[in-house]
Amino acid sequence: MNIEIKNAYALTDGVIERHSIYIEKDEIAGIDKKPAGFKAEKTIDGTDRLVIPGLINAHTHSYMAPMRNIADDMPFFDWLKKGVEPVENSMSGEDPYWGAMLAIAEMIRCGTTAFNDMHMHIHKTSKAVKETGIRAVLCRGLVGDRYDREDVRIKQALEEMPDGEGTNGRLTFMLGPHAPYSAGFDYLRGVTDIAKEKGLGIHIHLAESQFEIDSLKQDQGLSPIEYADKAGCFDVPCIAAHCVKITDSDMALLAKKNVSVVTNPASNMKLGNGFAPVPEMMAAGINVCIGTDGAASNNSLNIFHEMSLITLIHKGTHATPVCIGAKEALDMATVNGAKALGLKKVGMIKEGYKADLAILDINTPSMIPRNNMLSSLTYSANGSEVDTTIVDGEILMEGRELKTLDLERVLYEVNRMMDRLNP
Amino acid sequence: MNIEIKNAYALTDGVIERHSIYIEKDEIAGIDKKPAGFKAEKTIDGTDRLVIPGLINAHTHSYMAPMRNIADDMPFFDWLKKGVEPVENSMSGEDPYWGAMLAIAEMIRCGTTAFNDMHMHIHKTSKAVKETGIRAVLCRGLVGDRYDREDVRIKQALEEMPDGEGTNGRLTFMLGPHAPYSAGFDYLRGVTDIAKEKGLGIHIHLAESQFEIDSLKQDQGLSPIEYADKAGCFDVPCIAAHCVKITDSDMALLAKKNVSVVTNPASNMKLGNGFAPVPEMMAAGINVCIGTDGAASNNSLNIFHEMSLITLIHKGTHATPVCIGAKEALDMATVNGAKALGLKKVGMIKEGYKADLAILDINTPSMIPRNNMLSSLTYSANGSEVDTTIVDGEILMEGRELKTLDLERVLYEVNRMMDRLNP
Repeated sequence: MNIEIKNAYALTDGVIERHSIYIEKDEIAGIDKKPAGFKAEKTIDGTDRLVIPGLINAHTHSYMAPMRNIADDMPFFDWLKKGVEPVENSMSGEDPYWGAMLAIAEMIRCGTTAFNDMHMHIHKTSKAVKETGIRAVLCRGLVGDRYDREDVRIKQALEEMPDGEGTNGRLTFMLGPHAPYSAGFDYLRGVTDIAKEKGLGIHIHLAESQFEIDSLKQDQGLSPIEYADKAGCFDVPCIAAHCVKITDSDMALLAKKNVSVVTNPASNMKLGNGFAPVPEMMAAGINVCIGTDGAASNNSLNIFHEMSLITLIHKGTHATPVCIGAKEALDMATVNGAKALGLKKVGMIKEGYKADLAILDINTPSMIPRNNMLSSLTYSANGSEVDTTIVDGEILMEGRELKTLDLERVLYEVNRMMDRLNP
Repeated sequence: MNIEIKNAYALTDGVIERHSIYIEKDEIAGIDKKPAGFKAEKTIDGTDRLVIPGLINAHTHSYMAPMRNIADDMPFFDWLKKGVEPVENSMSGEDPYWGAMLAIAEMIRCGTTAFNDMHMHIHKTSKAVKETGIRAVLCRGLVGDRYDREDVRIKQALEEMPDGEGTNGRLTFMLGPHAPYSAGFDYLRGVTDIAKEKGLGIHIHLAESQFEIDSLKQDQGLSPIEYADKAGCFDVPCIAAHCVKITDSDMALLAKKNVSVVTNPASNMKLGNGFAPVPEMMAAGINVCIGTDGAASNNSLNIFHEMSLITLIHKGTHATPVCIGAKEALDMATVNGAKALGLKKVGMIKEGYKADLAILDINTPSMIPRNNMLSSLTYSANGSEVDTTIVDGEILMEGRELKTLDLERVLYEVNRMMDRLNP
């Protein structure tokens, strides 16, 4: 749709100033300069509006949204074995579809326009992504010991891929070997071989917990980063989620191999894993982006919350107010995320870029006065300010009303599912 | 007003179940049992509603709301000298009134029903509190070296006190010696003498930064806690804000003297002061409650955000998921806060208690499904779910519309003020 956003505050080149933005089909066709022959089919009044690049959730598990708050304030293995797995193992039929729909509804409502998902039921998420119009990179979580090309999970992962066709590039895929402790060395090398052969990226959990570090060191004499590197993961575009427990030499390796790291501050704290060395990773030149992880370990899918955490916790751990500022947090949640996910022309408000945008209503007490709007995005906003969300030039939410999914139906189906799975 | 909240989820005795709540004048007159002769003047449908005790912001500076985002990501003394003080010193006339109105609007919108305020322009906050119907404990910030009963600030502090009359106890006062580094020993002892004489509590900043610890140790050979104790602060009901840098023996002293501590997690991280030893203070038996601090060091006044931080950051620093759970965070933000502020029959949903309530609309993606609603309040909510806020039996917000203040006017006046003070 051709959309004109008229005289709004907008974040371009790291600065917030008033601009008019012209959207033609799926892209930003002009800023302050109306493209030749442009006819707006829709005009959005920019009064009291702040337009930012849509936020990118670079690591999540959308099917876990129904497990929100199912196992809080308990030891990790209770969380996993008593909380998450019984539900996970009972999900069937359309359950994972409704789970993904809930996650997508929540993300659109807080201005997230793209997400990177590791999923057990990839074909259901794929359906939800296609229907709702959000942008996503999906992978089927892969676990195993000995590599076998006929492995059912690997087949599922590959079979789904043609599904991205016809989505104008909105739906793409990676391979998702789960983690060093769940993907044996032979298996992991086999998966990376497929990735190389098919030109796919790898999305993997690395160095999340001390347990992982200790057991891998004992078994293999390697750190998780060294293990993944040895198996070839870093020879293709790689997204490493977490990287909480890493050394300087791990960081040097990640930087050298251009691995993108997704930090998940809420999840890492909530499960007692601590604080990833984000300022140190940035100093080492690593592309760091932000994820929420799944709703069972967060328990929301709100990148504004994660940006707030990112700017606060490292000031706390490093005992200085000058550590990861608002601009750096926003970069992590936009351009850095786009780079990690391999999304071309995404993550900035710029001519020729994809029209993936969040428009905030900033005429609200917590965003007034406007002493520093860039700062307000990480320190004052909580995501509820997002009024309109646009992906690939399509309006997915306007006036906080979701346009491409039936929210009442989604909430009803998820509640009904959990009445059955967690009575 | 007589209000019936019909068949809503409600948090009573630490458990969330369906209840009907009957409000008569300023108090909760019945739960599930309609009081004799009760006639509802208003009925609130409880479908998809969760009623909680109104949240208590136990340490803030409301007049600083217009300084939101004015000095972020910079060293502490730049924050203070280049950001905060120039505006603070230029505020005049009705400026502090509009500042307090902005703070109150923001707090009501996220379910805060009472706040504890240290202020430079106490008569202006007093006016705002009376007009808006929120509950507050106010003190005039006091700084000085040698004690003088004719000190202008002390006179202002005392002159304001009769103003609480006619507010049904909604507006009360304390004395607010600022901090050990700004209130000399003689001055502090003089102020505590007045507190004893008048039966007032003390609200003071203690042990916020390493700078404070080091300079006081050098000057006096005492920790801030020991200094305040020696000056008599703990011989009256005392609220100590921050207590980030404290020792085991400080904690023992705070516990022994029944001092309430307000932890301000966002502010402490944002200014690089670190993490208060909250689990340790709780173990020592100290009454710990939660504050936002002023908007210049947060940068919002949202207790939901602080509850989320409290449950997450200590799990991170203590490397365990079993540390400060949802129930403990809620207690800090309700009953513990009420105890600290000296508010009788406030902080719980219980017959005979004050009708200070927040009603959340929980039919929203981030609060679905309802696996654990108590948990969802700290891990999933962000405050925007609050639909209705009631204080002393009066509805201050309904359907997110503020009933006792003209929000557009407040936002306009604050923007206009800052155009002048921070052009």
